[in-house]
Amino acid sequence: MAKSTKVSETVIRRMPVYHRYLRDIIDRGIERISSSELSKLTGFTASQIRQDLNNFGGFGQQGYGYNTIELKKQIDIILGMDHIYKTVVIGAGRLGQALARYQGFKSSGFEVLSLFDIETKEDVDAIPVRPMEELEDYIKKNKVEVAILTVPKTAATDIAKTLVESGIKGIWNFSPIDLPARKGVVVENIRLNDSLLTLSYYMKENK
Amino acid sequence: MAKSTKVSETVIRRMPVYHRYLRDIIDRGIERISSSELSKLTGFTASQIRQDLNNFGGFGQQGYGYNTIELKKQIDIILGMDHIYKTVVIGAGRLGQALARYQGFKSSGFEVLSLFDIETKEDVDAIPVRPMEELEDYIKKNKVEVAILTVPKTAATDIAKTLVESGIKGIWNFSPIDLPARKGVVVENIRLNDSLLTLSYYMKENK
Repeated sequence: MAKSTKVSETVIRRMPVYHRYLRDIIDRGIERISSSELSKLTGFTASQIRQDLNNFGGFGQQGYGYNTIELKKQIDIILGMDHIYKTVVIGAGRLGQALARYQGFKSSGFEVLSLFDIETKEDVDAIPVRPMEELEDYIKKNKVEVAILTVPKTAATDIAKTLVESGIKGIWNFSPIDLPARKGVVVENIRLNDSLLTLSYYMKENK
Repeated sequence: MAKSTKVSETVIRRMPVYHRYLRDIIDRGIERISSSELSKLTGFTASQIRQDLNNFGGFGQQGYGYNTIELKKQIDIILGMDHIYKTVVIGAGRLGQALARYQGFKSSGFEVLSLFDIETKEDVDAIPVRPMEELEDYIKKNKVEVAILTVPKTAATDIAKTLVESGIKGIWNFSPIDLPARKGVVVENIRLNDSLLTLSYYMKENK
């Protein structure tokens, strides 16, 4: 666990992929796996996989491979999944509601406590929608760590400022705007529209 | 337009970013912009920007910069936005419904004609939800080009096979599974859960 400083983002982004495959493998009752078997599944090379995992201290045994349950447990810890993040969703529109309702996030450690919107709206699966004016107080009082941002471009920058000032630690950003980096706050952008345009490009190229 | 063969994926993924900023710049009434001004906005270096655009034939003029409207128009063409893609959403759950309703995709050239689900469901904003058994026929008859896949992991592989056999050209995949690459079909994956786990990792590192 000690060697995790300065691991490249490329390596970090492969860790959830290992996690995803390990979950499947464990579901299928497989107790150990070699790096070359993992390579066939993930498409990464076996030496890449060994290097990636060595960044965090190894876990494999020469000639034995990886104990799947143990490896997944270690990756859980590396990815911070041994922690429940108190989460709010900002913007209770269609996407905000769909994200608040999605159960998969809870199993990844993100628990949605509340939504916030400028309009009065009904609860979303028993999760309340609060007025935007209460956002700052709510985050501070409840020590909320993560905000899922699904507001229009015009509102995103101001709200991001409020979030940072209220002590939020991470923003999962679905708004179509680049939020300025701020110290101590992690921003993970999901650019749905950029992804669609990339799809469009490659479809055109394929013709 | 002729030089677009073999442009790297990294460059391609920057094109929607230029597109996004150009739209903003044009909205603000700005008619020309230099690569160094674009650099300040996007965070890419000016020489990177010039190189990226040179892949497609340039468009800038020494000492003048880029005509914003003209450049956006060219990027529209590069990204295939001069074409309307007939699109279906597979899986009319929360995420599928939110995506079907989202107006932004239409302005990017993706028009959702129908949803498909194993359960009978009400129309989503006047877009019908059809039974899964009709999927193959529907795609063939209506020459549907794009499928947005929001089904559970267990169903994704079989449905992807049906999609490919029915002649689909692009899959925008929200299912948490890696779809095998098939010739003539572009797959663009949105891994929401991987992104959340990456956010979790960096928040843990920030502590």
